[in-house]
Amino acid sequence: LKRVAESTIRRLSLYLTALEEIDARGARTVSSEELAQLGGTTSAQVRKDLSVFGSFGKRGLGYSVSELTARLRTILGLGRRWRVCIIGAGKVGAALAQYPGFPERGFDIVAVYDTDPARIGERWGELKVRDAASLETDAKRLACDIAVLAVPAAAAQKMAERAVAAGVRAILNFVPVQLSVPRNVAVRNVNMAVELEALSFALTNRG
Amino acid sequence: LKRVAESTIRRLSLYLTALEEIDARGARTVSSEELAQLGGTTSAQVRKDLSVFGSFGKRGLGYSVSELTARLRTILGLGRRWRVCIIGAGKVGAALAQYPGFPERGFDIVAVYDTDPARIGERWGELKVRDAASLETDAKRLACDIAVLAVPAAAAQKMAERAVAAGVRAILNFVPVQLSVPRNVAVRNVNMAVELEALSFALTNRG
Repeated sequence: LKRVAESTIRRLSLYLTALEEIDARGARTVSSEELAQLGGTTSAQVRKDLSVFGSFGKRGLGYSVSELTARLRTILGLGRRWRVCIIGAGKVGAALAQYPGFPERGFDIVAVYDTDPARIGERWGELKVRDAASLETDAKRLACDIAVLAVPAAAAQKMAERAVAAGVRAILNFVPVQLSVPRNVAVRNVNMAVELEALSFALTNRG
Repeated sequence: LKRVAESTIRRLSLYLTALEEIDARGARTVSSEELAQLGGTTSAQVRKDLSVFGSFGKRGLGYSVSELTARLRTILGLGRRWRVCIIGAGKVGAALAQYPGFPERGFDIVAVYDTDPARIGERWGELKVRDAASLETDAKRLACDIAVLAVPAAAAQKMAERAVAAGVRAILNFVPVQLSVPRNVAVRNVNMAVELEALSFALTNRG
């Protein structure tokens, strides 16, 4: 499992979502054609994607929904729960703290940090916004795997470095800044400005 | 301007964000090295990216911040305002309707739709949630360029088709479904499950 293309992981994730829908409909098996349709690809691509991780399914019988779901969850690292801290308690941080997809997928938000004295101490459900100054001293007790970064652009790189120093090994970055982190730290960028500008570029240049 | 790689558009967008920060600091010129650092790339890449769109900057003098900002805004289609409708008035739709980045970047939300009678008629600031049944009849009057899709997965493809039939030429898709649309319709996917699973995959497989 050294190098798996990002696009493959993305499709595995879409197959998993599709399987959950298929399961909710009560179906027990699924064909690569059905998965392809729901994942926006071809059945050959589905078989190729899945074959990377071993043999699945039986020729002509399709895949068992429950087996394939379990295998995909294991491949994607969803067989356990992850500890997440949110850094930046502004609007984006607040929206994310309420996002039901986090706990549903096994991501538990265990802390929220900010540097603004007006926000520190605020109650967010079961959490209380903590002073970002305690990021390092909290590290051992909280043992966050993932930091969700939602701070002003000027603070992003520094906060990312502090999160990594505190033991975080993955960052979900909502700040429109390209972070520079050690190679063993995974970063995913969610950047609304980039998405919007890709659309306006397409609208402008396709006429 | 036929084919420009997605990764190039993404970097142009990051350069623009960087230029706005540089401008806020009061600087009048910027070097390709500085842009490279802020955009997480190399100065050679910056020069290559910009050269695709004509000649910018003077050797040894760097780029004029105001000129380059204006050129990037034009390239990215930000020289005008875009009309956006949100389809799906649930939590995601509500969070997006309040996102200040939309109007700041020239994206005006002109309508919100839902199919749930309990939501139709709700006041959202200056907007009122409209019945999705009126999507087609509203089309001419509202003339939406972009649809933001935030509906349940089972409704996504059908709603995307209706939005396209109503004249939308770009979709920002928050639903974890691969949409199938005509080639002249631009789609960008923002999929939190995919991002989270990419991180858990990386955490699991990098050890």
